[in-house]
Amino acid sequence: MSKKNNDKVLIFALGGVGEIGKNMYVVQYANDIVVIDSGLKFPEEDMLGIDIVIPDINYLLENKDKVRGILLTHGHEDHIGGLPYVLRHLNVPVYGTRLTLGLVENKLREANLLGETKRILINADSELNLGTITATFFKTNHSIPDSVGVALETPEGVIVHTGDFKFDQTPVNDQYADLHRMAEIGKKGVLALLSDSTNAEKPGFTGSEKSVGVTIEEVFRKAKQRVVIATFASNIHRVQQVIDAAEATRRKVTVIGRSMVNVVSIASELGYLRVPDGMLIEPEEVNRMAADRVVVLCTGSQGEPMSALTRMARSTHRKVDILPGDTVIIAATPIPGNERYVGRTVDELFRLGADVIYGPGSKTGVHVSGHGSQEELKLMLNLMKPKYFIPIHGEYRMLRLHGQLAESVGVDQEDIFILDNGDTVEIQGGVARKGARIQAGNILIDGLGVGDVGNIVLRDRKLLSQDGILVVVVTLSKQDGTILSGPDIISRGFVYVRESEGLLDEANRIVTSTLNKLMNDNVNEWASLKTHVKDALGRFLYEQTRRRPMILPIIMEV
Amino acid sequence: MSKKNNDKVLIFALGGVGEIGKNMYVVQYANDIVVIDSGLKFPEEDMLGIDIVIPDINYLLENKDKVRGILLTHGHEDHIGGLPYVLRHLNVPVYGTRLTLGLVENKLREANLLGETKRILINADSELNLGTITATFFKTNHSIPDSVGVALETPEGVIVHTGDFKFDQTPVNDQYADLHRMAEIGKKGVLALLSDSTNAEKPGFTGSEKSVGVTIEEVFRKAKQRVVIATFASNIHRVQQVIDAAEATRRKVTVIGRSMVNVVSIASELGYLRVPDGMLIEPEEVNRMAADRVVVLCTGSQGEPMSALTRMARSTHRKVDILPGDTVIIAATPIPGNERYVGRTVDELFRLGADVIYGPGSKTGVHVSGHGSQEELKLMLNLMKPKYFIPIHGEYRMLRLHGQLAESVGVDQEDIFILDNGDTVEIQGGVARKGARIQAGNILIDGLGVGDVGNIVLRDRKLLSQDGILVVVVTLSKQDGTILSGPDIISRGFVYVRESEGLLDEANRIVTSTLNKLMNDNVNEWASLKTHVKDALGRFLYEQTRRRPMILPIIMEV
Repeated sequence: MSKKNNDKVLIFALGGVGEIGKNMYVVQYANDIVVIDSGLKFPEEDMLGIDIVIPDINYLLENKDKVRGILLTHGHEDHIGGLPYVLRHLNVPVYGTRLTLGLVENKLREANLLGETKRILINADSELNLGTITATFFKTNHSIPDSVGVALETPEGVIVHTGDFKFDQTPVNDQYADLHRMAEIGKKGVLALLSDSTNAEKPGFTGSEKSVGVTIEEVFRKAKQRVVIATFASNIHRVQQVIDAAEATRRKVTVIGRSMVNVVSIASELGYLRVPDGMLIEPEEVNRMAADRVVVLCTGSQGEPMSALTRMARSTHRKVDILPGDTVIIAATPIPGNERYVGRTVDELFRLGADVIYGPGSKTGVHVSGHGSQEELKLMLNLMKPKYFIPIHGEYRMLRLHGQLAESVGVDQEDIFILDNGDTVEIQGGVARKGARIQAGNILIDGLGVGDVGNIVLRDRKLLSQDGILVVVVTLSKQDGTILSGPDIISRGFVYVRESEGLLDEANRIVTSTLNKLMNDNVNEWASLKTHVKDALGRFLYEQTRRRPMILPIIMEV
Repeated sequence: MSKKNNDKVLIFALGGVGEIGKNMYVVQYANDIVVIDSGLKFPEEDMLGIDIVIPDINYLLENKDKVRGILLTHGHEDHIGGLPYVLRHLNVPVYGTRLTLGLVENKLREANLLGETKRILINADSELNLGTITATFFKTNHSIPDSVGVALETPEGVIVHTGDFKFDQTPVNDQYADLHRMAEIGKKGVLALLSDSTNAEKPGFTGSEKSVGVTIEEVFRKAKQRVVIATFASNIHRVQQVIDAAEATRRKVTVIGRSMVNVVSIASELGYLRVPDGMLIEPEEVNRMAADRVVVLCTGSQGEPMSALTRMARSTHRKVDILPGDTVIIAATPIPGNERYVGRTVDELFRLGADVIYGPGSKTGVHVSGHGSQEELKLMLNLMKPKYFIPIHGEYRMLRLHGQLAESVGVDQEDIFILDNGDTVEIQGGVARKGARIQAGNILIDGLGVGDVGNIVLRDRKLLSQDGILVVVVTLSKQDGTILSGPDIISRGFVYVRESEGLLDEANRIVTSTLNKLMNDNVNEWASLKTHVKDALGRFLYEQTRRRPMILPIIMEV
């Protein structure tokens, strides 16, 4: 394939920069588009009622015939969770390692998309020809097995995307990151590096997952009764260590929580989890076993309201109770925003008499991050020695700090690109510059609705959540405009009605007199009537209560 | 005053245990009630639209004539913020040290309560006779000057309340905690100790406020342009150190943000803040000064949406812009729940090109807590050597951990009382036991409404915030029940109407056919009509959208 003079490499994110979540990165050369990951994001606190958020993929849909496929770096939701929505409109092949595809297939089956989706298994030695772009891979360490980074060879040079990574020098199951492969790629020359910025704020090195295993076994050994341990389901290395510690301390394990059951089953089937025969017991068996022979492995490490651990803490779990003297380990650090939920769960567990091991992993030893800290980020930069650097996978401040780390190891400041979603970097003749922006943004998913909730709806939900709503209904005569029925005022989320009858009666009088006055003045367009009622009532309520409920005047004519 | 046989000491919290906030503790002996502090709490995330929360003081109102006064330990909102609400119904004397009363007076003036409130100035040597109870005080270190602990001598023995405290061995302005006084009280014998549990989760000692001053001066010295520093307004020692560092580095200080301006003015007036002549400049002067001669001291260290720093970060502050190369210090640790707000502010500051020093105080050196860590809590316990121990001022888990610390220094497990608000401890003849519960709880304040928002209103706000509302209006004929007008469906916060016309049209048809069917079946009580419309429409919408908006059927008859 010959290189045309005006062809160039285009690099951009549809999701994942300026945020943690909905990762989706795009590398294009001429008519070949390669997509890396297709994730979802959980809603921010001002996205009221929203279930999940996915990237706007308009650019990919407009260039459908150029998209050669979606390469998946690993099986976390923020990297694969958007697939069911994306594949429905963009039927392209999906490439992933064995565990990643296993998790994806489960997801596509639920979405009825399994049959029509081409899934292609890769391993760290695969080489894919995607038009003018050749993709190869390298093994990394992360909090889920089978994670890879991607090297895309383009006619302009090699673009490396690290995926999510850390450098774990003593990984569980000997799943070493392929340092040699990374060194080789770096030696040949890297045009641009896109690297994980999650822990760019953290100095030093991230601890090894194996250190967690040591602590867990110690806790299991000391615990006089049952141990309940909550962690992320997808952290299969962690799950393995829980099983190993149970084996070493002659305990049996029961698995509770939908995603935990799910992942344990997929990972065992695919050989990523080694479970000794007879190790797993049903939740129903727990009460029949001696307390010091049991481990409950469950979801809920973030205090999620409906999760297994939260239900146990509230004594509403159907199968497992927490008893005084039980030990509960929360093997996770709260994600920002979840601290209060986790705190409440811990409070409730203490109230039940449990001994609770919780708090930042650095203090308790029962959790380490899956993302590399500053020294590891520099190590990656030094291995790859890129000409251009694009920090990805992080809030803006993390991208900026990652950029500073790149400078500190010798990347020129003008060769570092801090992007927003939709910003493009063009590389042509070995020279990179910011290109034209392409469309990017959040698509909000609420129930079955994809994109039908926008800013106006969110603004209304916000207003409704603050001071509630008053609906004012009145029926007027078509003939002479006299009030035939009403005004009736119905409020929700505003005041406790029984204690505020006087207020609502007075509100009623104000609406009536406003309408009568307008009628006398011969004002009778609906829009004008409604505005006047809204203004008069709004003013009165604000004076009386200092609140601004939404006011919905409904005027009927018969 | 003679001691009757059946008199006893009663100790309980109306607010402050099982939570951080709205501190209000009560000690009663016979007909004498002493209240310690009267705080407010900021709403939790599920208290939608609520402004602040105060304790239910029903017990005090029912025993009005026994309340001898409210003793204030220090001037923080969670200790004095409830006063304007409480004093309106309970006109009793308020006792506080000079700075505390200064802050209280400001608050009472705004609430038009200054004239009618008896305010009594105390110092660490005061002795108050409150009926059968005698109150003395001891100086403590905290993140606001003029903090004291309280010792209440009752006929049963001495009850000590620590207030909020740490042990700062190198305090700013030589404001040492009175170790000797505490030792003396402990030596005489303490019946029960109530002690601050805020940092019961933190091992070791809390750092000295002076260490913060060193770091701040270093940053000021290195900064090539303006320094903007955000901290809690009431941390007057911190403010003093900012002023000292500015003096040392030949910078001028401008103060921005209502509470910061307020506190700086009160504290200077009362002599708690030493401000060199000519040190303070108006915000308008900032742009006329050389950038490296300016410090902007402001509010907003928690990323509060309307605060000075947030507005500067969003470039919406009327007087001060952040320029590329400016240094911003956020001298605070985010309160749980505020991490995302602080994160966003930091992102925006980075986008403006500022250098931002942020994150946990332990890493940045620009913040230390005002509360003692585990070693200090043990030191207090060892100084006081109480017979009974009641951990206060903390979430349940903190109280529990504080209880464990007490055990570790020799308090018997059965002599430790972990209370909920309203739980009482009775001590009679030197023996303590849990007594009957008294009424306690949250009073929610929303605008001018005190207590008119309860669980039903909050539940409605929650529902409205998730999926919005549909109002269905129809006018029926009184004669024959035929539909004269409507059904009209108006939605807010549900879907973007223009894109969902089909859905709403279909919803309309379903309401019409439901009503017609009911008329044919001669069902015509309103309640029944409404229920049927609600059910049919709710079912249809859930099938189509998987959402459950609130549905408000309004049926008019003319």
